[in-house]
Amino acid sequence: MIGDAVFPAEPWQVREPSLDLDRLGSTESVFALANGHIGVRANLDEGEPHAIAGTYLNSYYEQRPLPYPEGGYGYPEQGQTLVNVTDGKLIRLMVDDEPFHVAHGHLIAHERILDLRAGVLRRRVDWVSPAGRRVRIRSCRLVSFTQRAVAAIDYEVEAVGHEVRITVQSALVANEEQPQESSDPRVAAALDRPLVAVGQDTEQHGGVLLHRTRASGLLMGAGMDHVVTAPGAYDEETDVRDDWARTTVVTVLRPGERLRVTKLFAYAWSSSRSPQALRDQVAGALTGARYAGWAGLAAAQRAYLDDFWDAADVEIDGDPVLQQAVRFGLFHVLQAGARAERRAIAAKGLTGPGYDGHAFWDTEGFVLPLLTYVAPHAAADVLRWRHSILGQARHRARTLGLDGAAFPWRTIHGEECSAYWPAGTAALHLNAVVARAVERFRQVTGDTALEAECGLEILVETARLWLSHGHHDADGAWHVDGVTGPDEYSAVTDDNLFTNLMAARNLRAAADACARRPEAAARLGVSAGEPGAWRAAADAVHVPYDERLGVHQQSAGFTRYAPWDFTGERPDQPLMLRAPYFQLYRRQVVKQADLVLAMHWCPEEFTAEQKARNVDYYERITVRDSSLSACTQAVMCAEVGHLELAHDYAWEAALVDLRDLHRNTRHGLHLASLAGAWSAVVEGFGGLRDHDGVPVLAPRLPEGITGLRFRLRHSGVRLLVEADHETVRVSMRDGTDTRLPIRLYGEDVELTAGDPVRRPVVPLKPLLSPPEQPPGYKPDRAAPAGRGASDSAVFPRETGR
Amino acid sequence: MIGDAVFPAEPWQVREPSLDLDRLGSTESVFALANGHIGVRANLDEGEPHAIAGTYLNSYYEQRPLPYPEGGYGYPEQGQTLVNVTDGKLIRLMVDDEPFHVAHGHLIAHERILDLRAGVLRRRVDWVSPAGRRVRIRSCRLVSFTQRAVAAIDYEVEAVGHEVRITVQSALVANEEQPQESSDPRVAAALDRPLVAVGQDTEQHGGVLLHRTRASGLLMGAGMDHVVTAPGAYDEETDVRDDWARTTVVTVLRPGERLRVTKLFAYAWSSSRSPQALRDQVAGALTGARYAGWAGLAAAQRAYLDDFWDAADVEIDGDPVLQQAVRFGLFHVLQAGARAERRAIAAKGLTGPGYDGHAFWDTEGFVLPLLTYVAPHAAADVLRWRHSILGQARHRARTLGLDGAAFPWRTIHGEECSAYWPAGTAALHLNAVVARAVERFRQVTGDTALEAECGLEILVETARLWLSHGHHDADGAWHVDGVTGPDEYSAVTDDNLFTNLMAARNLRAAADACARRPEAAARLGVSAGEPGAWRAAADAVHVPYDERLGVHQQSAGFTRYAPWDFTGERPDQPLMLRAPYFQLYRRQVVKQADLVLAMHWCPEEFTAEQKARNVDYYERITVRDSSLSACTQAVMCAEVGHLELAHDYAWEAALVDLRDLHRNTRHGLHLASLAGAWSAVVEGFGGLRDHDGVPVLAPRLPEGITGLRFRLRHSGVRLLVEADHETVRVSMRDGTDTRLPIRLYGEDVELTAGDPVRRPVVPLKPLLSPPEQPPGYKPDRAAPAGRGASDSAVFPRETGR
Repeated sequence: MIGDAVFPAEPWQVREPSLDLDRLGSTESVFALANGHIGVRANLDEGEPHAIAGTYLNSYYEQRPLPYPEGGYGYPEQGQTLVNVTDGKLIRLMVDDEPFHVAHGHLIAHERILDLRAGVLRRRVDWVSPAGRRVRIRSCRLVSFTQRAVAAIDYEVEAVGHEVRITVQSALVANEEQPQESSDPRVAAALDRPLVAVGQDTEQHGGVLLHRTRASGLLMGAGMDHVVTAPGAYDEETDVRDDWARTTVVTVLRPGERLRVTKLFAYAWSSSRSPQALRDQVAGALTGARYAGWAGLAAAQRAYLDDFWDAADVEIDGDPVLQQAVRFGLFHVLQAGARAERRAIAAKGLTGPGYDGHAFWDTEGFVLPLLTYVAPHAAADVLRWRHSILGQARHRARTLGLDGAAFPWRTIHGEECSAYWPAGTAALHLNAVVARAVERFRQVTGDTALEAECGLEILVETARLWLSHGHHDADGAWHVDGVTGPDEYSAVTDDNLFTNLMAARNLRAAADACARRPEAAARLGVSAGEPGAWRAAADAVHVPYDERLGVHQQSAGFTRYAPWDFTGERPDQPLMLRAPYFQLYRRQVVKQADLVLAMHWCPEEFTAEQKARNVDYYERITVRDSSLSACTQAVMCAEVGHLELAHDYAWEAALVDLRDLHRNTRHGLHLASLAGAWSAVVEGFGGLRDHDGVPVLAPRLPEGITGLRFRLRHSGVRLLVEADHETVRVSMRDGTDTRLPIRLYGEDVELTAGDPVRRPVVPLKPLLSPPEQPPGYKPDRAAPAGRGASDSAVFPRETGR
Repeated sequence: MIGDAVFPAEPWQVREPSLDLDRLGSTESVFALANGHIGVRANLDEGEPHAIAGTYLNSYYEQRPLPYPEGGYGYPEQGQTLVNVTDGKLIRLMVDDEPFHVAHGHLIAHERILDLRAGVLRRRVDWVSPAGRRVRIRSCRLVSFTQRAVAAIDYEVEAVGHEVRITVQSALVANEEQPQESSDPRVAAALDRPLVAVGQDTEQHGGVLLHRTRASGLLMGAGMDHVVTAPGAYDEETDVRDDWARTTVVTVLRPGERLRVTKLFAYAWSSSRSPQALRDQVAGALTGARYAGWAGLAAAQRAYLDDFWDAADVEIDGDPVLQQAVRFGLFHVLQAGARAERRAIAAKGLTGPGYDGHAFWDTEGFVLPLLTYVAPHAAADVLRWRHSILGQARHRARTLGLDGAAFPWRTIHGEECSAYWPAGTAALHLNAVVARAVERFRQVTGDTALEAECGLEILVETARLWLSHGHHDADGAWHVDGVTGPDEYSAVTDDNLFTNLMAARNLRAAADACARRPEAAARLGVSAGEPGAWRAAADAVHVPYDERLGVHQQSAGFTRYAPWDFTGERPDQPLMLRAPYFQLYRRQVVKQADLVLAMHWCPEEFTAEQKARNVDYYERITVRDSSLSACTQAVMCAEVGHLELAHDYAWEAALVDLRDLHRNTRHGLHLASLAGAWSAVVEGFGGLRDHDGVPVLAPRLPEGITGLRFRLRHSGVRLLVEADHETVRVSMRDGTDTRLPIRLYGEDVELTAGDPVRRPVVPLKPLLSPPEQPPGYKPDRAAPAGRGASDSAVFPRETGR
């Protein structure tokens, strides 16, 4: 399933050596830039050709009706869709009379580089117009981590061989035409011209456009400003209309001369503030950007990323493909969350329109484990966002006839937007995953303030939800019925084991938190009996187990179901696109790790033998049609000793977008899988687990990885873990007063600064042989790095700016 | 739950003594006329006011897209909706200059009578115009049982007190405006102007309009003709346009004089024939009707019904309300099926737009048991219709990944139109219910030709479906997983007991039929191993039983689920309109008889004690939010000895529309419940069951019924069963050469013509006390007959025409 490499395996950058128009949609996502606040797809500067034009503002959405041919009580009536806002990244170019277009004339060379340390996207073009006029173009763009409202493009054209007239048109364009997407349910619904003009202004070197969404009534402002450097005289003028603004620069270049236009653009949006306030905010952001200038913005970007990598980098020796992919994933997770600041992190970040721009359990379940260890401020902001939508979640719980709060399966603004309840509302486990993220944040960071600020209330409200939905049977066992676990090829099942264990954990965490904060709990109306009832339910939770097979059941009765018939399968399409739910739901076929995820996240509930046997059983029926699967399989295969298989899965998780493994990278990146690649390596090969505030480590490397070094933040200090096939070294990089207990291969050790712990690697003999996957579903790491890619670099490599 | 009576309890008619505009929608359905081919709602002759104008042609439908906010593989993309076709029943009246309108002027009297023996709807009006001009109007309409394309209205106006100018405008109108219906999922989607004009003609005394549906492309023709009788001179003229035709008659009446206009109207429709052919067909039908004249049509109608009642009537002494309601039900079931002739019988017949005009399992499950015993030719035609859509059903099975044929949950033309698969596609039991109807037809009628013609193929294809969907577990038990039984407050359950038993019966019936017809089976490609595999599955079918409670489980694990919390329930709205499926599906709350239906239809699979215990358990959790429930509860309560409760349920089934118990009679009658009323009485109090061709009888009457006499057709002869509280008498009315074995109170007896069997009633002491229903859901027979109805008849009663 691992496709050909498009990008050469280079440690700190992703480079497309030549333009492949067939992959344009996918590279628009791969090269997207974002800071969690603003996101811009890597559309070509000149706007066309494009697959999907995309500029996104976090949580700036349009409402749309959800039409059901057969409705039902409690079905969400309004959907929310992330809007492609006013496009600020357009810089059109005319060479004499000819518009520059990569598909016309002769494209001698075209290279794009995503620089993971500089945080910029560079582009270099060498082009001859149909009339025989040659130009070289260099552009470099960034979305600023340090000035969250600002993005910038440094654009330079050089005349080659002839004198040419160069016209650069830099634009803001609202309501761009978007392609009609397929009927695949996973593809976001298209929205037609959602922005209504509210006002516009011409500024000295640019303009500002103000718009409001038609139905959701959200206001936005987009502005641009320009700095022009030309060898000789040039003309500059700006036109502004309702839906566009355009600054045009015209000059004549002699061979070797260059025109440089630095475009600064900025956004502001609000549901409550006035157009005038937004106009001022945009203007202020542009002034700040102009003050820093391109060089200042780029330098600050680099410094921000240096700080990030210092405590987040993962070094993988011997596998340059995985090395590049893991860094690519870390970079994009940072881009999605760095400045989200109490807004959601969507499943696709701000890289594409996929899933309507919704946030799912992916955020707390897959992205936060990473962010908590490498960018805890961003993790805290996600939990604050979750807390901010408690009102909607309480309302949803009431609609469902339940107590507490039921967080939405998919949302932007907090309301449930899932239009298929068996795989939405019924996936109640989301709430326990949120609670787990609250608990993990406290345990890993040592921060207790966030619990007081918002964590306790989340724990209490989710615990109440579970207690009202679950029930004790006549024997006292506690059941959670009619829910959907992570595996979406089952739904509305009883006693989904993942859900049961996570719910029990949620209940205990709430009871513990109330015990820690009795006064705060009383303020939340927690009665004397509630924590006891939570603990009683948790202690009585039913764990379905098949005695005959000696394995746990994904849900009650699961191992009794008919097997899936894999005869004649063509695994190039997900099963859900070629079989009805009616067939899938009661067969032993698993879309994504579910029971195996329970073992990853609740490791203490299973013996080593159970883990080995369960992995063996479920590997044989899991098809990984979800991108949320390979990372978990990597971790658990590593834990039970199938290190080569784990390595395969780590590749699959990490390369999900660089190789477009799910054939839908064009709709945006798979952030959970990219974050999961970190889990695959750090939790899989590093053996990292959270355990009541004690980091647990047990590095074991597969053959193809000769060394692994990863950095973590824990309890306020930075750790470095270094491992090869013989030795492990764990060191604390700061915190001279800190004594940090860790557990290394089961041994409790205390870590202090300047006194690294060294141990020989403790090998693990697997209990069982590596399992088979279903026919056609074997993970594949055979494709060598760079195979199939056109690596004929035309330009010499750059090494930073 | 039994509301006030609107209609006085009269044995052979349903009479509305005065017009109640608040109940107009409901009475439009109650007084609807149909013959299975054409249906006309009881809209007032003058067209307005109306709740829902309705004229329907069996299976004349429009296609419409089914838009899913989140689609899925195998979801039906096209819906089908019964069309309100060209309205032929309009007769507008002007009295001097004033249009006659029941809400203007002074309505002295207004009476409508549905005559169950004459098969006509009579109306009498006494009205004074705002200008003080008084007229009496009598109209009588019929939809002919003997000329299936024809309907007629005999319309008479009499001047009272003054000379008046009378203008009668008889019209055909296409594309009438329809009300916007509610968002209740059960209400049919409205369709806007579905008919496109194709041609029109003016005839000597009327006109013809030809239209085609926009999307489904079905052609239709409607024509009208008139016979005018006036005391003096009159003018007559006809105008025709694209969407209407109008014949106007003008005359002046002196006091006591009458103008009589007999309107004949006819329909033809086709998916393949030409407009010219349809025009000729309509004209031919009108000529035939004119040849018979009003008197001839009415006489033939009466004769047809005399013949029907002769072998179908049920006489109930002591309960005039139930007597009337059961005859009303029999009449409407006949109207739905008499001339359906290989077209579907929809859930609402041709009485309203409810459920989009779709046919469900109601047809074979509830309507056919009645039709098989009283109008076997109509039952045979339904099975032929089912056979005619085997192609679509096979295609559907392939889409579902199954063998054989999967009949649609709801359809007009044969394609699946259910847009919510958990309560549609997953209700696989429909196929076993169809198979059961095939089996029953052969056993009850003794007809073997229909099995050869189409029954065998239905049995084989449904058996193949079951074998491909079910599976044997490691112990050999055969399971059917992930299906929805009759109870729609559970869905996607495993081993629904009703489904399992019915599937097993289906499999055995197919194997038996193949054994009877080996050559025909071979032609259908039945392999040597198939029948053996069918029998093996049937023999190994899993029957979920709760040992601790000593009751069967509706589905695996059902009795372990949490109870429903009935505290604070307001039973004036179905639970599904105030609780989400997510809550309902895994609670012990039952919308409609499911396990109890299994005991009714598969009586041999349960002991008497099991039946008593199961009834007791499920009565306490069944809310009867479906109209398909009370009849079954009546039958099973009677069988276990709760005769008074059975009597209550018989009322509820029979009065579903006469008392508008589900508050939606305006959308059409509940045919299954009306047929179920017959079951409640004949199978409940008469104890009738089918058993391998032997009629089983065990009459036991509740206190309030002093005598019961019912007629049946069985094995080609007519039977009469007469019972009171002491004695039962069973007689065969014809067939001098026939010796018919029957089973009476468990005793095998042989019946011959002229030699009735007499036995004393064998009383039954119930094993358990009568069970309680959920709070607020007790059936209610307290309302006395006629209570609340305005019974101040202004006109002397008519006794036939």
